[in-house]
Amino acid sequence: MSETKEQPIQIALLGLGTVGGGVFKLMNRLREELPMKVGAPVEITRILVRNRQKNRPGIPAELLTDDFQEILMDPHIQIVVEVMGGIQPACSYILAALTAGKSVVTANKDLLAERGRELLEAAAAHQADLLFEASVAGGIPIIRPLKECLAGNTITEVMGIINGTTNYILTRMTRDGMEFSQALEQAQQLGYAEADPTADIEGYDAGRKMAIMASIAFHSRVTFQDVHTQGITAISARDIRYARELGCVIKLLGVARLGDAGIEVGVHPMLIPESHPLANVNDAFNAVFLHGDAVDDAMFMGRGAGEMPTASAVVGDIIDAARNLRAGCTGRIGCSCYKDLPIRRAEDCESRYFFRLQAEDRPGVLASIASVFGNNGVSIAQVIQKTRSSGLAELVIITDRTVERHFADSIAILKGMSMVKEISAMIRVYP
Amino acid sequence: MSETKEQPIQIALLGLGTVGGGVFKLMNRLREELPMKVGAPVEITRILVRNRQKNRPGIPAELLTDDFQEILMDPHIQIVVEVMGGIQPACSYILAALTAGKSVVTANKDLLAERGRELLEAAAAHQADLLFEASVAGGIPIIRPLKECLAGNTITEVMGIINGTTNYILTRMTRDGMEFSQALEQAQQLGYAEADPTADIEGYDAGRKMAIMASIAFHSRVTFQDVHTQGITAISARDIRYARELGCVIKLLGVARLGDAGIEVGVHPMLIPESHPLANVNDAFNAVFLHGDAVDDAMFMGRGAGEMPTASAVVGDIIDAARNLRAGCTGRIGCSCYKDLPIRRAEDCESRYFFRLQAEDRPGVLASIASVFGNNGVSIAQVIQKTRSSGLAELVIITDRTVERHFADSIAILKGMSMVKEISAMIRVYP
Repeated sequence: MSETKEQPIQIALLGLGTVGGGVFKLMNRLREELPMKVGAPVEITRILVRNRQKNRPGIPAELLTDDFQEILMDPHIQIVVEVMGGIQPACSYILAALTAGKSVVTANKDLLAERGRELLEAAAAHQADLLFEASVAGGIPIIRPLKECLAGNTITEVMGIINGTTNYILTRMTRDGMEFSQALEQAQQLGYAEADPTADIEGYDAGRKMAIMASIAFHSRVTFQDVHTQGITAISARDIRYARELGCVIKLLGVARLGDAGIEVGVHPMLIPESHPLANVNDAFNAVFLHGDAVDDAMFMGRGAGEMPTASAVVGDIIDAARNLRAGCTGRIGCSCYKDLPIRRAEDCESRYFFRLQAEDRPGVLASIASVFGNNGVSIAQVIQKTRSSGLAELVIITDRTVERHFADSIAILKGMSMVKEISAMIRVYP
Repeated sequence: MSETKEQPIQIALLGLGTVGGGVFKLMNRLREELPMKVGAPVEITRILVRNRQKNRPGIPAELLTDDFQEILMDPHIQIVVEVMGGIQPACSYILAALTAGKSVVTANKDLLAERGRELLEAAAAHQADLLFEASVAGGIPIIRPLKECLAGNTITEVMGIINGTTNYILTRMTRDGMEFSQALEQAQQLGYAEADPTADIEGYDAGRKMAIMASIAFHSRVTFQDVHTQGITAISARDIRYARELGCVIKLLGVARLGDAGIEVGVHPMLIPESHPLANVNDAFNAVFLHGDAVDDAMFMGRGAGEMPTASAVVGDIIDAARNLRAGCTGRIGCSCYKDLPIRRAEDCESRYFFRLQAEDRPGVLASIASVFGNNGVSIAQVIQKTRSSGLAELVIITDRTVERHFADSIAILKGMSMVKEISAMIRVYP
């Protein structure tokens, strides 16, 4: 690319929803500073929208187009910013743009978690930049720190509170003693949760982000299909109260670990000690905690969603892509998955577990329960009898580290026993 | 630079102390992965030491030299890693290396905080990389996130716990009720504090790091001379206990703010609310908290010192410099101080203040004290009488936001009043 100093770098936005609007606003705010940051002006000259007729205050109508081909065929457009979301047509558009040698910035976690390899291969084949800092943890810098600042480390653990909706819900349940349904309703009223909250509360959204982060942290491809997910719908205010009595809080955590047997990656509600830095990350804040062999423990905290925090990450990537265009080094850092490590099955992974159980309140019951665990090779670390009423006792049980399969077998047997009346959510305990 | 794929990128280390040893160790550990990260092998082929005869287990003697000219004149050495510390000869060596077109990685905060402009200008003049992630907050990525990921933001506040020694001391004083001298002694025994701890406990070390961070965050040069520093030697266990009663902890904080009147930058012990994320950063951990117009609040936490965390940052920079050499784009991101903003004098800046005072225990004393503040335009937010004995009362006073000069004037007058027997450390209160 040869550029004279004065020629602006032209950008097309694909999509003008919340994030797209934020990017447009932020790029306008930065208009005068961009030449000093990049060495040339950087301008949005085209915006792809579905409906050009829609009233959009503050957006010059001549920027709008409903035809992606116009953008693809425009040789002056060097950076394509995909903020439309969804798998298609976003995927086709990105592949076409990369193939045309354009740099691409995207915030699309769904797409990256499913088809990241294909997209990164297309970028490499055409020596184009594909940047996606906004796809994980919104405004928090994490992709670039992993790929660059921490590149000297073997990262062995990445844990994240990377879904603001569920963290808000759990914070309300913890602080105000709300039940899940009530906290969800409040989150919806405040706009923290969508009308259909499934992707958030079932851990799918966090799972996609974990797939992307684990791929980068461990240099080996992890897709959303590899991520074991457990949501927070079965967590009750009582679980949270008992956890607190044990000096813990309950958080929906993405956890990815690298061990000799391969990569373990999942999203689960977990008890973590109140003294852990992640325990103090509340409301809609996100945080990523990681461990590397050289850096030791590190944590990155900030806003994981929202118009401007996400725009912050997208615009950071735009500036990076523009600097690479200016310096003639697009594709400088491409796919970093140079290993091919096995992904461990969730049922083979080890954890400690916390759960509550209602059983008949009579002699011999605890012995029967304990023997089920013992026969399955699960050892119990702690049993606390919490309440007794109308012939039923509530027990809180915490296991030692155990293989998930053995724990699940034990629970299946307990469920079939007449003396056991109800078993609550199974919640993993960190570490 | 033209490189065939197989030619290794050669590096020289200047210095083989704690950090240099860590870098050597980490580069060795990464030997097999570096070609996949960078696209070429990266090798340390020369190490500058003062005494070549010293016994250094694990270091091949043929790498050692005591002659910098050998390194400078070697055209195969493309990256010079300065980890010797101090102003000279480090400064001359770095300038010579940059002038020869070599990339430079340094961990030298003292040098950058004093002569950053000159070094960055030399790098720009020769289109060479000058990278210094390790100079602030050790292993925590902060320079690159500010220059790249957060480049779309106007950063208005940067606060940091960026000195592990003082954070360790204050943590011991807080948790174990130790006095300063006792905690310092323990820190020295554990190797967290040097025999001469002045630079740490007086806030000079943190001040240098704040100068570097403020320069980058606000795009305007801040040198160590611009940073107002107050150490922690006058903080007592009693201050900490009273702070806790107010729901606060005392931390040595670097604070840099951008306002209409310019840049305010200082290092002071401060009361911060226990709910603030920085309040939970304990022991030798460091953290940087910042606010940007788009990203909102963000925090980065980790180990701010030590052999391997610092090596993590240095090696991250080495990999970056090597990637730039491979891509032929050294100097891609240079000095970002494209503004020239005024630095505010500390005495003009506003803060709330906390202090303790011993005064005669008789009617009218409080009125006299209050009128001194009132006459100087300082309003008092809170007065708490703590103890009374042998005719003396201890008062804890917290002011509203006030200009430092007015507060200092009031204290000077109080010190001259016979009814006032003793005034403790003046501690700023955040926010």
